[in-house]
Amino acid sequence: MKTDVVIIGAGPSGLMLAHLLHAAGVNPIVLERHTQEHVLSRIRAGVLESTTTDVLVELGIDERMNRESLQHDGVVFADGERLIRIDMAALTGRHVTVYGQTEVTKDLIDAAEDRNIHVVWESEDVALHNVDGVDPHITYTKNGKEERVDAKLIAGCDGFHGPSRQVISAETGRPFELIYPFGWLGVLADVPPCTEELIYANHERGFALASMRSMSRSRYYIQVPLDQTIDDWPDEKFWDEICTRLGPNAASHVTRGPSLEKSIAPLRSFVFEPMNHGRLFLAGDAAHIVPPTGAKGLNLAASDIVYLSDAMIAYFKSGDEAALKGYSAKALARIWKSERFSWYLTKLMHRFPENADFDRRMQLAELDYLAESEAMQTMLAENYVGLPI
Amino acid sequence: MKTDVVIIGAGPSGLMLAHLLHAAGVNPIVLERHTQEHVLSRIRAGVLESTTTDVLVELGIDERMNRESLQHDGVVFADGERLIRIDMAALTGRHVTVYGQTEVTKDLIDAAEDRNIHVVWESEDVALHNVDGVDPHITYTKNGKEERVDAKLIAGCDGFHGPSRQVISAETGRPFELIYPFGWLGVLADVPPCTEELIYANHERGFALASMRSMSRSRYYIQVPLDQTIDDWPDEKFWDEICTRLGPNAASHVTRGPSLEKSIAPLRSFVFEPMNHGRLFLAGDAAHIVPPTGAKGLNLAASDIVYLSDAMIAYFKSGDEAALKGYSAKALARIWKSERFSWYLTKLMHRFPENADFDRRMQLAELDYLAESEAMQTMLAENYVGLPI
Repeated sequence: MKTDVVIIGAGPSGLMLAHLLHAAGVNPIVLERHTQEHVLSRIRAGVLESTTTDVLVELGIDERMNRESLQHDGVVFADGERLIRIDMAALTGRHVTVYGQTEVTKDLIDAAEDRNIHVVWESEDVALHNVDGVDPHITYTKNGKEERVDAKLIAGCDGFHGPSRQVISAETGRPFELIYPFGWLGVLADVPPCTEELIYANHERGFALASMRSMSRSRYYIQVPLDQTIDDWPDEKFWDEICTRLGPNAASHVTRGPSLEKSIAPLRSFVFEPMNHGRLFLAGDAAHIVPPTGAKGLNLAASDIVYLSDAMIAYFKSGDEAALKGYSAKALARIWKSERFSWYLTKLMHRFPENADFDRRMQLAELDYLAESEAMQTMLAENYVGLPI
Repeated sequence: MKTDVVIIGAGPSGLMLAHLLHAAGVNPIVLERHTQEHVLSRIRAGVLESTTTDVLVELGIDERMNRESLQHDGVVFADGERLIRIDMAALTGRHVTVYGQTEVTKDLIDAAEDRNIHVVWESEDVALHNVDGVDPHITYTKNGKEERVDAKLIAGCDGFHGPSRQVISAETGRPFELIYPFGWLGVLADVPPCTEELIYANHERGFALASMRSMSRSRYYIQVPLDQTIDDWPDEKFWDEICTRLGPNAASHVTRGPSLEKSIAPLRSFVFEPMNHGRLFLAGDAAHIVPPTGAKGLNLAASDIVYLSDAMIAYFKSGDEAALKGYSAKALARIWKSERFSWYLTKLMHRFPENADFDRRMQLAELDYLAESEAMQTMLAENYVGLPI
């Protein structure tokens, strides 16, 4: 096969890019090693900046989101006792949209079918060839048969573990990484959320987050040591712990219920520079990971895709190489600031084992200052709703 | 001897307290183990918040300060290339005053002599007795002879190494501490400063600060490993290093000259809770230490003294115990926020040995964000000029 752009990965990054290119008359082919069902079974974050919703609106893939999503004008921070509400709408004039990444992906897949965007599911053993020379192409195996796609450009939207980043050698690319000494245990349950907005809680026993997918489906998280497993956390123990950590004011509104899903995810900050090598362009988790605090992962992928689709479309429409060459630096400027915010919020809200007593006093002083200072609240709010593209 | 309040330590905390009590008709005696010359030979910070200058104005000890000090409406941050100016006056309507701690202390000592405030210099072996019972008193040795002062209240203004904090046992008091893995090498030189405002520089080789005492006396600092001594830093090497770290825009204005003073100081964050035990009240460095980044040490001592003098005067005027009992909590609320800011600014600007590559990218992203965000600039400015008392 021959195409303009081959996109590796049918997560939200790859699908958004495919749609944006297709809408501009550029032909993409998307290769995804998993089944559609597998892709849609992954439970991820659910807070969208306007960075992300704007893309869906532009693509006309916003009908279900408009109907089912929740608009959040504020976000709440807890310090074990107090609830401190940050009024994002008043401070920034903007809001965030609560709509699960899984739902976004489903809408993108459904629209890709409607629009005849070519997605090859279960394309295994994807390999990139000649990305920095003439004749760049991709090979993969489908139903036991090796296939080849020739493309002018390649988009690596294949996540942290995908093959795209691996073809950029250590001489030309450089990773930056921080592994956090804890994970998040997440529970999904069909119970009403304890408040209408998210609560990020700093408790002396560790971080907790009260989140939601809808007014009847809650998503709760607690910080846990990396050596624990979900077997350490039967439902009742989890509910007890989340209530303790959220503090008495929020705990009294927690509705308990059986967990639909329960999993532990490690926390990592990761950035790979540059995001471009020859004809290959990385986007989303393939190039960077944020810890989930602040829900920046999907939103950062969306801003990558805005920059990358603009650059690719300019290339195909007018042969403009400059935008392609500028993509990595442009995307990274915003990525580093989102990485900073995610790292900052993680440091502010979690219990770190080393020097935990001093650290928690610093955290409590910062939350105390946050409760009083409009400047600090605005700093937090403008990052939470998303820095400008 | 008998008096209302015995004050241990004739640094700026002890002397400000003595003046404020004396002006209100409460009788202090100040005990200082060093000579006046020794106290005045200590080179310390030189940036005063209005918290501090207001006290000197109230006491009428502001004549020389008004004449010789510099008003700074802004402060500059460098990232190795750029200079980012924070316009404190525009963002907060306030400014800071550049006037050395040594000069403040000299003015307080001179005024104490004029006003017949009793300061006992070279009072050695100060010991506190019965601070939590009846008959509290202090003993000390002067000219080989043991002396005793009986006082209703005792103020521990004797710094980090003084005897006051030591009498509060581990059962009732609790220290919080962070030792930083580097020190500051400071050089004082009679050369014009390189800019009219301070420059805090984050360079990949480490932190640097361009500061001043006047338009003809500069004070420069660089971050150095703790295992180095001043012998590792002959003047020329120091000047080369400061120029590198400040970056090309500032370096071209650096005037070199022989060092008048050169010393290395470790960096520490420390808070002791509570600041009161029985009749003893701690203030300033006796209860808390900040790293010098942001110059909060003296200013935090001044806010302690405002709270403590108010409480002591209320006690002597109306027998009000409540203000004395509330002192520690009231002072600590502001202290923890200043500790947070000093820690934050130290973390933002220094090279930490562990995971230094990732950390510096976080720092550069934060400085990049600082350059763009009015909220972030306001957060920094409102802390730098001093949070409200």
